[in-house]
Amino acid sequence: MEVDEVVCLPRLSRVAVCGGTHGNELSGVYLVRELLKVKKGVMEKEEEQEEEEPLSVLKVLSNPRAMQQCRRYVDTDLNRCFTHATLNGLTSGTVPYEMIRSRELNAMLGPKGRSGAVDLVCDLHNTTANMGLCLIAYSDCDWICTFILKSPIKNHIPSILWESMASVTMEIGPQPHGVVRSNVYTAMKAGVQHMLDWVCFFNSGTLFEGESVDVFTMIKHIDYPRDSETRNITAAVHPHLQDRDFCPLHPEDPLFQTFSGETLRYKGNEPLYPFFINECAYYEKGIFFKFIIHLYICKHIS
Amino acid sequence: MEVDEVVCLPRLSRVAVCGGTHGNELSGVYLVRELLKVKKGVMEKEEEQEEEEPLSVLKVLSNPRAMQQCRRYVDTDLNRCFTHATLNGLTSGTVPYEMIRSRELNAMLGPKGRSGAVDLVCDLHNTTANMGLCLIAYSDCDWICTFILKSPIKNHIPSILWESMASVTMEIGPQPHGVVRSNVYTAMKAGVQHMLDWVCFFNSGTLFEGESVDVFTMIKHIDYPRDSETRNITAAVHPHLQDRDFCPLHPEDPLFQTFSGETLRYKGNEPLYPFFINECAYYEKGIFFKFIIHLYICKHIS
Repeated sequence: MEVDEVVCLPRLSRVAVCGGTHGNELSGVYLVRELLKVKKGVMEKEEEQEEEEPLSVLKVLSNPRAMQQCRRYVDTDLNRCFTHATLNGLTSGTVPYEMIRSRELNAMLGPKGRSGAVDLVCDLHNTTANMGLCLIAYSDCDWICTFILKSPIKNHIPSILWESMASVTMEIGPQPHGVVRSNVYTAMKAGVQHMLDWVCFFNSGTLFEGESVDVFTMIKHIDYPRDSETRNITAAVHPHLQDRDFCPLHPEDPLFQTFSGETLRYKGNEPLYPFFINECAYYEKGIFFKFIIHLYICKHIS
Repeated sequence: MEVDEVVCLPRLSRVAVCGGTHGNELSGVYLVRELLKVKKGVMEKEEEQEEEEPLSVLKVLSNPRAMQQCRRYVDTDLNRCFTHATLNGLTSGTVPYEMIRSRELNAMLGPKGRSGAVDLVCDLHNTTANMGLCLIAYSDCDWICTFILKSPIKNHIPSILWESMASVTMEIGPQPHGVVRSNVYTAMKAGVQHMLDWVCFFNSGTLFEGESVDVFTMIKHIDYPRDSETRNITAAVHPHLQDRDFCPLHPEDPLFQTFSGETLRYKGNEPLYPFFINECAYYEKGIFFKFIIHLYICKHIS
């Protein structure tokens, strides 16, 4: 786009903060429960300072049944249910709980384009990978997500990803699933507060100057080595790679250590940046980690 | 006992190494799978060097159904089923899977006192707590467990506990449940090898001189602060306490941080040593952590 072009966007009146989409990722579960207690407290102080129409913040516990069982999901991964086919398909026979729940959430928060739909969804997640506080956004064509990635919250975020999500996902780790660590909870609480502060700042009619921001974008993922018969994994992440999310992995760097002690190396031709290294939930999905390339996006956005 | 008293003990012919008692504690699962592949490999080399009757090492995957689902248990905690009542009680109606499995394991490895029973069970576990490699034994009246705690494996173990277990439990953390970390797997593999080496050393007729060993013993446990109505926890482990297993906790030291940010302090009168701090599985059991006192046991055992 042209450097001097100004894009005018409508205010964001309704924001949803969602925790417990995965029932065992506890930072979001406890943060949303806390926000539900604090009706007009710390998290919305910016709103009260504004004289304009107040910001409506909807706090949602996305998957109550999975939360109750402290499991990622009951029948199927809720975070994979927000597709056009699942949300609008015909139902026959026994419908998985998360499919029903995804339709309830779609009716509550959306559907996209409806006048009562929320303007922004912030979905809270944890990972066992050492990813710090990380934002995952749909694409760089979504103005609001792009602005949020460039807002003061950026100072708290080492890594920003573009991914195929319909909302902004705040992903924080490392934290074991089923556990809540105070430092991770506090980081998420601060991250959500910064995001809401930014929305209020945006709503006040601020003109944002363009600047650059580091982002990563996903290009592929690879699976663990597995036994051809049992499909059990035969190696773990190599100790040299473990916890080094977003660090460059060069050709011939150690990748896996087999359970018999052998080192397997990265055989690609170019350096890549792995993330979601040793994420618990990806064992069943056949993903060892995702590979990303490091893009320095330098668009002038006003 | 008298300082010069010598106790003669029969050799240990049969040892069981058990993994997957909790199906989502993966170091033991993958180590036992690996041992089952290596019939006469690294893990039993000492045995082959001996000219005496070889040591029989039985490798057991304790809870296959829970392993398959990557859950701690299917119906009930297997590790709480090895009671006289459960093993010998009458069955009526639907019997939980783990109760059936505990009887199968008891028939395979025991029962205690039967001529074909194993002489030693080493049960492999992980914890999300920062406990390093830790041995948990039944009591200081069990000679074999006492000797193992005093063996060269001790050099790899920062902490040794006495607890009410019917076998030696090797507990290693921190590792999220459902995840395998190479460094934790390697530490467990070395620990099991040291234990088997010690058994062979013991079986060779070695006379052990008495020496001292640091142990901790459990005295009580406390639960998380909870909402009186919902029973949900209202605080997490304080960041100053997190990961400080086996370190002294003094009166007025921070204990919890509530989700609204308040610090709750330890109100006891004497320093204690917490362990299993923020262990995932204890959330449902109503245990925040266990408290132990630091005992310096200095018995002369020959």
